[in-house]
Amino acid sequence: MKAVRLHEYLQPPTVEEVADPKITGPLDVIVRIGGAGLCRTDLHIIEGQWKEKSNVALPYTLGHENAGWVHAVGSAVQNVTVGDTVIVHPLITCGLCRTCRAGDTMHCINSAFPGINTDGGFASFLKTSALSVVKLDPALAPKDIAALADAGLTAYHAVKKASAILYPGTTAVVIGAGGLGHIGVQCLRALTSATIIVIDRNERALELARTLGADRTVLADGRQVANVLELTDGFGAEAVLDFVGEGGAIEDSIAMLRRAGSYYVIGYGGTLNVPLIDIISSEINFVGNLVGTYNDLAELMTLTLAGKVKLHTTTYPLDAFRDSLADLDHGRLQGRGILVPA
Amino acid sequence: MKAVRLHEYLQPPTVEEVADPKITGPLDVIVRIGGAGLCRTDLHIIEGQWKEKSNVALPYTLGHENAGWVHAVGSAVQNVTVGDTVIVHPLITCGLCRTCRAGDTMHCINSAFPGINTDGGFASFLKTSALSVVKLDPALAPKDIAALADAGLTAYHAVKKASAILYPGTTAVVIGAGGLGHIGVQCLRALTSATIIVIDRNERALELARTLGADRTVLADGRQVANVLELTDGFGAEAVLDFVGEGGAIEDSIAMLRRAGSYYVIGYGGTLNVPLIDIISSEINFVGNLVGTYNDLAELMTLTLAGKVKLHTTTYPLDAFRDSLADLDHGRLQGRGILVPA
Amino acid sequence: MKAVRLHEYLQPPTVEEVADPKITGPLDVIVRIGGAGLCRTDLHIIEGQWKEKSNVALPYTLGHENAGWVHAVGSAVQNVTVGDTVIVHPLITCGLCRTCRAGDTMHCINSAFPGINTDGGFASFLKTSALSVVKLDPALAPKDIAALADAGLTAYHAVKKASAILYPGTTAVVIGAGGLGHIGVQCLRALTSATIIVIDRNERALELARTLGADRTVLADGRQVANVLELTDGFGAEAVLDFVGEGGAIEDSIAMLRRAGSYYVIGYGGTLNVPLIDIISSEINFVGNLVGTYNDLAELMTLTLAGKVKLHTTTYPLDAFRDSLADLDHGRLQGRGILVPA
Amino acid sequence: MKAVRLHEYLQPPTVEEVADPKITGPLDVIVRIGGAGLCRTDLHIIEGQWKEKSNVALPYTLGHENAGWVHAVGSAVQNVTVGDTVIVHPLITCGLCRTCRAGDTMHCINSAFPGINTDGGFASFLKTSALSVVKLDPALAPKDIAALADAGLTAYHAVKKASAILYPGTTAVVIGAGGLGHIGVQCLRALTSATIIVIDRNERALELARTLGADRTVLADGRQVANVLELTDGFGAEAVLDFVGEGGAIEDSIAMLRRAGSYYVIGYGGTLNVPLIDIISSEINFVGNLVGTYNDLAELMTLTLAGKVKLHTTTYPLDAFRDSLADLDHGRLQGRGILVPA
Repeated sequence: MKAVRLHEYLQPPTVEEVADPKITGPLDVIVRIGGAGLCRTDLHIIEGQWKEKSNVALPYTLGHENAGWVHAVGSAVQNVTVGDTVIVHPLITCGLCRTCRAGDTMHCINSAFPGINTDGGFASFLKTSALSVVKLDPALAPKDIAALADAGLTAYHAVKKASAILYPGTTAVVIGAGGLGHIGVQCLRALTSATIIVIDRNERALELARTLGADRTVLADGRQVANVLELTDGFGAEAVLDFVGEGGAIEDSIAMLRRAGSYYVIGYGGTLNVPLIDIISSEINFVGNLVGTYNDLAELMTLTLAGKVKLHTTTYPLDAFRDSLADLDHGRLQGRGILVPA
Repeated sequence: MKAVRLHEYLQPPTVEEVADPKITGPLDVIVRIGGAGLCRTDLHIIEGQWKEKSNVALPYTLGHENAGWVHAVGSAVQNVTVGDTVIVHPLITCGLCRTCRAGDTMHCINSAFPGINTDGGFASFLKTSALSVVKLDPALAPKDIAALADAGLTAYHAVKKASAILYPGTTAVVIGAGGLGHIGVQCLRALTSATIIVIDRNERALELARTLGADRTVLADGRQVANVLELTDGFGAEAVLDFVGEGGAIEDSIAMLRRAGSYYVIGYGGTLNVPLIDIISSEINFVGNLVGTYNDLAELMTLTLAGKVKLHTTTYPLDAFRDSLADLDHGRLQGRGILVPA
Repeated sequence: MKAVRLHEYLQPPTVEEVADPKITGPLDVIVRIGGAGLCRTDLHIIEGQWKEKSNVALPYTLGHENAGWVHAVGSAVQNVTVGDTVIVHPLITCGLCRTCRAGDTMHCINSAFPGINTDGGFASFLKTSALSVVKLDPALAPKDIAALADAGLTAYHAVKKASAILYPGTTAVVIGAGGLGHIGVQCLRALTSATIIVIDRNERALELARTLGADRTVLADGRQVANVLELTDGFGAEAVLDFVGEGGAIEDSIAMLRRAGSYYVIGYGGTLNVPLIDIISSEINFVGNLVGTYNDLAELMTLTLAGKVKLHTTTYPLDAFRDSLADLDHGRLQGRGILVPA
Repeated sequence: MKAVRLHEYLQPPTVEEVADPKITGPLDVIVRIGGAGLCRTDLHIIEGQWKEKSNVALPYTLGHENAGWVHAVGSAVQNVTVGDTVIVHPLITCGLCRTCRAGDTMHCINSAFPGINTDGGFASFLKTSALSVVKLDPALAPKDIAALADAGLTAYHAVKKASAILYPGTTAVVIGAGGLGHIGVQCLRALTSATIIVIDRNERALELARTLGADRTVLADGRQVANVLELTDGFGAEAVLDFVGEGGAIEDSIAMLRRAGSYYVIGYGGTLNVPLIDIISSEINFVGNLVGTYNDLAELMTLTLAGKVKLHTTTYPLDAFRDSLADLDHGRLQGRGILVPA
């Protein structure tokens, strides 16, 4: 089959022929890829940012946002059958450790993360497990929803955590209304009645945010902190969801927090730098977010099927991987980029 | 009456005569001080660290850990009467704002903080409010429990938050078994069945920690992170409660966290400096802590009355304030220093 | 002033002249009534159902759903001033007991409940406390929102509890789309993305429910349990909110529960009768609901101001109290009945 | 192998020879039984109380509290190996449904319950699954801890739920200090600092409860409700854990509840009969409890290994099943009865 393989850090991956994956264990599932989302993390991987964290042996196949149809199953698989439409939770998990059993799928102590530390879905086929596939209504096209497997899941997971503190009358600030952020706005609208303020440098992104449920939008023109404080009677927001995580977004996020507020870290790239006295004197929190649980993904698919979460995408054939990457890197990509094998 | 007044930052406060406080509002309560705890924050105030945050007009009276007996009450006070033994919650609050009504006493939007931004309890009398006094069993001596009003309350508040994630089989690391830390260990023992690991540079502090409920103690000799990882099978701790907040404590705390773990910030002085990728890739959290609620204080007094929390103190007459400060500053203070007016 | 007074159980209350209430304490607030909601509980009070629970001395003034304008305030009241538009939380509370400080307003151990155990708001003026008034936008007309003070608050409070278990993909069943139920549907829609199934005997009530956010409606024609089970793939609903509480509603509610589901008791009149083996073998819960907290009421007003909760009302002059009661008793009342003093 | 088989309801089960269970699926685990706990539910099964709920085909093997050593494993089992000491979670679960993935093991929609609706552990061998075995320290003897698999798990599960509302200063009432209750007392002591009041008809049971951590004990002599109200200043208890569930225990439990309190239903046999007005006017809750999750069982084993939960047992050879049943039925059993295959 064809696959997009990374051979060396800081070098562009290549599209090449590799062997098809095979069923070897009773719970294995092989998915024929219908769509695989391109993510800023793919750029970060190529740049080597994940080199030490993933410790993956090169070459390997990228692609961690996958959806398609079940192609083959192991002897003990009972939850899906060949032909089922599925979205693939990004981790392969054991189902047996304490964290798996508590539902914290992404902290399984025996996990693999296809596309990060083992072969991913920029290919015709992906090998995963019965524990990782969410069965979908066959009316759904994998290429339309693939990016929900990671980008959407991460946004939903962070919003779900934040929703616990967002009762009516509170304010949630969304920093960055791009690929993840525009899903975050929809999830906030679906899960809460909080006032949603969206901040972006791009007026078009703010326009989109308003159609997706933002109550207020603020252009990131240098006065965004002052504007958010004004919109919140000087108190700041109970929750700030930062989908950017670099540039001035970190400092802005902290400055926009209300006392006892929480900063949800989703985007990354920059560094948090804050005196502890500022953390204790206002009793603020910083909350990390990493993809989400299997059940989070199933819930997000429920919202998607109900039309409450919609995704803007641009598709590319698998062979056009380098074009897609260049479009992403240079900000030419409208919505989320999706690779579709021939 | 006599009071310890700060006239200028970076200059030692002086003991001097000032007018007695008077009842002016229907909910006012004047407490005759039986004991007022000395805190590292008093040192930080004198150094000017709180200057901008408190914005207090000098001179003013220090002292934010107070207990004593009710001396006078306003016309509408019904929960205490003259002569009652009380411990004083550190904030004066309105009881009417959203946060007061939600029980988050320390985030009242109309609050004053005696000893921080208005006259405190290093004096014969303190003016506070009916909403701030916890009535106690008269058998309790204010000088024995005064330090629980802030140091103890802060430790309890942080432990109570942490207890929500500390089921049997989890690990809580306590960094620093000093004034707050040794109360934290007792609160952890009372509220959880987690494994408690205590870290300190001082072998005597570790000995005390073992008698107070620590399951394991680790000397901070440079190998403390490695030792905690070894004690947790390489995974790290679900909760790290950092009562130090400077020196290498911050970096150690992060390095000791398990995936999805939480770092409870209690001590301060240093700066948190962490790339966002490290926060999201392990999905860790940072949780600020600032004193605690009125109900937290009442719960802590319940534990104290039951003998589950004990405090080590050294008393000084109010006139000996400078000696007490010097002892604190030079590490000569055993347990918590308590000022007792004549 | 005029007031509706109950002199004897099982006898109709009379409209008569009584003395105006006077400010006697520093936190007293006297509200000029702009609207007072009529409630099925008023019928139950007259019937004597609350006689032993309230232990009120007759005669007294009915009316526990009140809104209006501040008419006079005690010396220490700072949160409202004369002329402010307010809705009145149904309880007068001390603000000092553990439950008040925890925000559980309705369990204050020193409370009074105007209209239940002391003089209520079917009158020109009502005496309450600074702790019980929620300041409103002056654009709101008290007669339009008075019924939210109790009926709305009760519905919101129950929905807020239920929302904690209602993630996307779950089902909430609402039994009874009348006075409280139609508010409950709107609150469910605002706070959750659950599938909402509404059951009523009345097709018109179901029509209204669909416009307010119900996903499915089921006529209570004897097949309602079977229909709900079919709509939930045979599993039943995670949450059943019973706004009826008599007739077959109780048995229906239990039969519609999914394993580990929760039955929210809101309406009353009937008796719960269930073998413990049925409770443990499916691990179901029964959750009582009694009005709500002050903060719940403030949150509900936020939803109301945002247009997310709307109320259907019919107004009566205070003098027409008996007509309003008869209309309520005979099912002739459209929406909620509101008494408006001259 | 030998097994205790139920052939007909209301007839005593017989000890007879049956075929050994065989590995048929990749996740199967066969456990050599070291101890199997006898439970009042076994009596209820024989009496036919579970006939319709379990719908099991007779004859089958009883026994749902099992521990032993791994005897054989399927091809995909990686968490245990032959010879490991294990305690067996009472359900066989799929690990794939929403509830499994959320950790709610006991609500798996594809589960089997050995000893209830399929062959159980009153036998030499038990067939279960990799998902159901908790690996133990080999120093533990299965016969000493087998009863924790269900009786202990149920008590722990209920206590863990209750612990969420049991802060210092609250009261937990335990009704019945027998087989489950005496474990419940130990779990409450380990997980909370609440005041524990234990009620029993038997002075010896109360003596034991005091040594296990009860703060107060009350003889069930007819004045138990009055005594509990007196011990709680007339308010009642925040939590009542009813391990009896019949006789007057149900009415007593309700009468001992504080406003907003919760009644944890654990024992069964009787019927809950309560007017809804009593549920709403005091806003009380009824919480069902059914065994517990896999993680609950692992946590309980942590407490057991730490010496915080101890079990009183009497062992019988498997052949003496009828004696053990008679002893249980006639109240002659000291602690928990454990069947040990030869």
